[in-house]
Amino acid sequence: MIRAKIVGATGYGGLGIIELLLRHPQAEITALIAREEAGKPISQVYPHLQGFCDMPILSADDPAAENAPADVVFFSTPDRVGMFDARKELERGRKVIDYSGDFRFTTAEAYADYATRIGKDPVHASPDLLGENAYGMAELHREEIKRARIVGNPGCFACSCILGLAPAAKAGIFLPHSVICDCKSGISGAGKKANPAHHYPARYEQMNAYKLAGHQHVCEVERELGLLAGEPVLVTFTAQVVPVCRGIMSCLYADLRKPMTEGELLAVYRDFYRDSPFVRVYDSKAAIGTINVRGTNYCNLSVSVDSRTNRLRIVSYIDNLMKGQASSALQVMNLMFGLPETTGLDQPGMYP
Amino acid sequence: MIRAKIVGATGYGGLGIIELLLRHPQAEITALIAREEAGKPISQVYPHLQGFCDMPILSADDPAAENAPADVVFFSTPDRVGMFDARKELERGRKVIDYSGDFRFTTAEAYADYATRIGKDPVHASPDLLGENAYGMAELHREEIKRARIVGNPGCFACSCILGLAPAAKAGIFLPHSVICDCKSGISGAGKKANPAHHYPARYEQMNAYKLAGHQHVCEVERELGLLAGEPVLVTFTAQVVPVCRGIMSCLYADLRKPMTEGELLAVYRDFYRDSPFVRVYDSKAAIGTINVRGTNYCNLSVSVDSRTNRLRIVSYIDNLMKGQASSALQVMNLMFGLPETTGLDQPGMYP
Amino acid sequence: MIRAKIVGATGYGGLGIIELLLRHPQAEITALIAREEAGKPISQVYPHLQGFCDMPILSADDPAAENAPADVVFFSTPDRVGMFDARKELERGRKVIDYSGDFRFTTAEAYADYATRIGKDPVHASPDLLGENAYGMAELHREEIKRARIVGNPGCFACSCILGLAPAAKAGIFLPHSVICDCKSGISGAGKKANPAHHYPARYEQMNAYKLAGHQHVCEVERELGLLAGEPVLVTFTAQVVPVCRGIMSCLYADLRKPMTEGELLAVYRDFYRDSPFVRVYDSKAAIGTINVRGTNYCNLSVSVDSRTNRLRIVSYIDNLMKGQASSALQVMNLMFGLPETTGLDQPGMYP
Amino acid sequence: MIRAKIVGATGYGGLGIIELLLRHPQAEITALIAREEAGKPISQVYPHLQGFCDMPILSADDPAAENAPADVVFFSTPDRVGMFDARKELERGRKVIDYSGDFRFTTAEAYADYATRIGKDPVHASPDLLGENAYGMAELHREEIKRARIVGNPGCFACSCILGLAPAAKAGIFLPHSVICDCKSGISGAGKKANPAHHYPARYEQMNAYKLAGHQHVCEVERELGLLAGEPVLVTFTAQVVPVCRGIMSCLYADLRKPMTEGELLAVYRDFYRDSPFVRVYDSKAAIGTINVRGTNYCNLSVSVDSRTNRLRIVSYIDNLMKGQASSALQVMNLMFGLPETTGLDQPGMYP
Repeated sequence: MIRAKIVGATGYGGLGIIELLLRHPQAEITALIAREEAGKPISQVYPHLQGFCDMPILSADDPAAENAPADVVFFSTPDRVGMFDARKELERGRKVIDYSGDFRFTTAEAYADYATRIGKDPVHASPDLLGENAYGMAELHREEIKRARIVGNPGCFACSCILGLAPAAKAGIFLPHSVICDCKSGISGAGKKANPAHHYPARYEQMNAYKLAGHQHVCEVERELGLLAGEPVLVTFTAQVVPVCRGIMSCLYADLRKPMTEGELLAVYRDFYRDSPFVRVYDSKAAIGTINVRGTNYCNLSVSVDSRTNRLRIVSYIDNLMKGQASSALQVMNLMFGLPETTGLDQPGMYP
Repeated sequence: MIRAKIVGATGYGGLGIIELLLRHPQAEITALIAREEAGKPISQVYPHLQGFCDMPILSADDPAAENAPADVVFFSTPDRVGMFDARKELERGRKVIDYSGDFRFTTAEAYADYATRIGKDPVHASPDLLGENAYGMAELHREEIKRARIVGNPGCFACSCILGLAPAAKAGIFLPHSVICDCKSGISGAGKKANPAHHYPARYEQMNAYKLAGHQHVCEVERELGLLAGEPVLVTFTAQVVPVCRGIMSCLYADLRKPMTEGELLAVYRDFYRDSPFVRVYDSKAAIGTINVRGTNYCNLSVSVDSRTNRLRIVSYIDNLMKGQASSALQVMNLMFGLPETTGLDQPGMYP
Repeated sequence: MIRAKIVGATGYGGLGIIELLLRHPQAEITALIAREEAGKPISQVYPHLQGFCDMPILSADDPAAENAPADVVFFSTPDRVGMFDARKELERGRKVIDYSGDFRFTTAEAYADYATRIGKDPVHASPDLLGENAYGMAELHREEIKRARIVGNPGCFACSCILGLAPAAKAGIFLPHSVICDCKSGISGAGKKANPAHHYPARYEQMNAYKLAGHQHVCEVERELGLLAGEPVLVTFTAQVVPVCRGIMSCLYADLRKPMTEGELLAVYRDFYRDSPFVRVYDSKAAIGTINVRGTNYCNLSVSVDSRTNRLRIVSYIDNLMKGQASSALQVMNLMFGLPETTGLDQPGMYP
Repeated sequence: MIRAKIVGATGYGGLGIIELLLRHPQAEITALIAREEAGKPISQVYPHLQGFCDMPILSADDPAAENAPADVVFFSTPDRVGMFDARKELERGRKVIDYSGDFRFTTAEAYADYATRIGKDPVHASPDLLGENAYGMAELHREEIKRARIVGNPGCFACSCILGLAPAAKAGIFLPHSVICDCKSGISGAGKKANPAHHYPARYEQMNAYKLAGHQHVCEVERELGLLAGEPVLVTFTAQVVPVCRGIMSCLYADLRKPMTEGELLAVYRDFYRDSPFVRVYDSKAAIGTINVRGTNYCNLSVSVDSRTNRLRIVSYIDNLMKGQASSALQVMNLMFGLPETTGLDQPGMYP
């Protein structure tokens, strides 16, 4: 059994990995750690866990937290926690999967650019660990993830954009400065903490764009697409919130170098994801949406060409808390421990 | 492996049992039958099933439907389908679990009363089968269900009311003509078919009571409570719809024969459900609601006494599509086939 | 023109009266006062007001707030604000309408009972003002309101219950200890302040009962029904929250002294509300709900008798922010200033 | 008083103009006409109208419908109704405002292109009327509307896009083939008729793109932007549905000919809309969204420049049923009858 410790266990990201590990056949949870609610059983914070997981929440400085046996530690923590606390876990021989931006970048410079966008200290606290970390997008970095001790989980918006454009970037079929990512997220993406913008009466009939000056996920998107394209890719990115709980719908646009049909584009996509069990590729007529991936690790892609304007258009659907966060982390864990990447992720979600 | 055929596979009730059987370790689906969409793979109707269940939908008169091997047949069909079609399944040695009112009653008279309330023909088509059928509320009829060939699944509202009042009825602590069941359902309870009352714009800010002249589920509630109380119980029942997808919240009131404390009432409830893994009993301070049982077979009960008015008040929470329908049916299947009743139902749901 | 000052202008209750006064033909707003956001124009807090009301928010201790000319002051403030601050407004010859419980009771004893239920100091700060205040339910206290200098606006739940049961109480047709009020509110009833229970992801699929130990609105309900019935009335009251923004649906039950038909009960109700333009009475077959009163001062009542159990059942629908709060206050203002009570309230709401 | 007849009175578009005309100081409704529900009072279909508008619904072939006195006729009807029925109204000297695509185009060729996209007969039934009709976007065609007998109301998506890009098109600051319109609509945009895609359980957690092969509103957008730009403009258009009732949020992108600052772009927009009372222009930091325009005729625009990619980005917010439909029609009516265009539209909406 893989023994897992979860830091930041009481947020939505921590809860997500708890729910998934509970049904994983080869993993078990050994400790739940969080800054708030310490001392309570997790099932008091989340009553649906009662009878399934009644472990106490430990504070980070509780010796029981540090000494809990573990093979892997999930840091479902804000930016600039994992970069400080991962080291001692690594020193004990544990693998680390961090949800924040701390280990999404492999150079101090790239981190600094990201950190600046979110108003954080641009100096990485553990620059020596950068370089050996892997970017946790299994579909693009399987082999690096298998070898890594530290993995930075992708941002939720970034995940939807990168999966949506990777095949086209790799095939070199679009102009690298023409990319637009128009991304809509459900509200759970903003986390568990109550705030005025996500108070039910303020939100139930509200759609809006935000962070128009520049969302931090664009760094990952440009880096990954650039690596695939073999040249710099520049992206206009618009983050939006709409009143669903779970789900991201990203509409992705880019100018084609030369005309191609939807069929040709579909072939590029299907070929690229041939061995990726969690990406489903659809033509433009398929009736799909976020509700069809809710609660799962799937990314559904609708592929089309606007031939009038010679532009490709991909609509990418994920569950922001799953493929955008917890289930993606579990897929990574499977790879890090030599398991089939679908282990524990082989359920279809629930409808309606 | 228990081989299961599902009739009415494309409705929410059929889909629910498909999802559950896919993760059941000792069951497999052998045929999906429905009046509409025949010929299509079920995963075309419900894209989230793609890769998990791509079986074709068969029409009822397709020989493949009739000849599919089966140990159990789920009739997730409207009233007055199972009473005609169950017989030939029984003759082939199969067990039958019917979601409608067809087999919830054990006499032709009781059925007639129910049928009249829903404007149906009061004459049961297979009266000879009545008497050997069991009422599918595992918590109350475990032994009969284990022996039965035919089980009538409880109505969703009825399930919430009966579980909420059974311990008090059994203990004889309330006046039998004083019961009020004030029940609010999510919209999925009305099924998959689009209709004006459940069109999103007409519903998102709408709460309303309906069928004020008399909801049919009251028959089951009065019968079951009467059996437990040992005397006739009369119920005022109010059905309401509120804009959630899944969930029933039933507030249940009855006049106490003599004063008792919340602690005493809690003891009665905890004792009654000591061996029922899917009922959780809470005091009046516990912060619980429908979201804590969503996607699960649990019934959460909040138990309190209004001492000023000498009345008991139980708030009963279930997922109408699960404990109120599909997962309850699976619990019944487990019992009919000698399995632990929690088999395949041991997951905590997903939050938020 | 009636000059109106609004204290607590930035909450939902304050905003409600702003919106209504803006379209009132004989009133104008002279000052907006609030503890937070002072200095900003109200249209910065509520952008939909831009161009309609761009007045600055004043802090209570700003001389401009105190000196603003006014004929009426609305206190849309928490409990125990109006009881301190109303006096100086009265001394200047202004009328006061208070939304809290401060002036809903006419004796210090009755106030103490109420205050205890909400965990507040039971000692009223201005007991000398009690007795001259009126209870702001226009349908029951028109004449007192016309004469009063101070009016306490009813609680939102209380409003729905009292209007729903008043005709039956007055007619003496139910047993006074048999009343049950099962009340469901939309989320805006909890106000503008973000909190974990009303965070969108925690609420969108959540229904729950709360304050089971005793909701404070029961005091008003029992007092008003008792006055009408001429004998003490005892009520079991259950407060619930469901995911709509606006709306209260209260199901009201009481045992009939002797059998009567729905037609007879309807006649009692229609007669009682003959001269009340904001109460609509329907039979049990009418398809009505909260969405039909949203944004208006109406209370829609569905009247029925459960003859099997000899019980009356009224379903009462209001908009908690309107008839339950702001528009009710405006109706009161109209009466206090000798205007027709429908002035400024003669719009049908918006659908869907 | 302007006497108004409404054809298609029972749909959301018809209802919208009823609600608005009821509060218009210089208009009155003289007949309500619809294919369904004829004979019923409109207040039976929409109970919130009770006491405000209880007129009977007339069928189109009822002589009372034809003979009702009228100065203006609103056709809130599907495509290809108005083009047949407008003529006889015009012959009686009435003005016509049509909500469909029938009179949005001024040549038979332009109509044919539009009709083909929606799978309709491309031949216009009244080509002789084309040319004298005006496009009902008051902000762009005030003078033509004042002179016209027939006005075609813009499509809801088109309205949000055209208002969002008109100033930039007029200023000639973007490349004409670089425009992308990424448009999200609330569900009421699909009308009143229940259908599986908008059934509450199927929609509450669903976001999806649709009509990817080409939405018909692109014709209007390209025509209007081309007229302003003085050269052909080509648009990639993506229609999406998200679970709100009312609202459109359109993100509009175009490549700048040469770099400019947000301040410069804002100046262009503010100048363009200087005399348009229903368009509000905001910088990229303003916290606005669809909820701030709900129930009103406003279009709120967030204006920004992505300087990294040298692209402009406008986020355009409207209420699809108001500025996207009924209130826009009323603004047009005001112009056609020489009234200030704000008459009857001077209310701020309701929040939350």
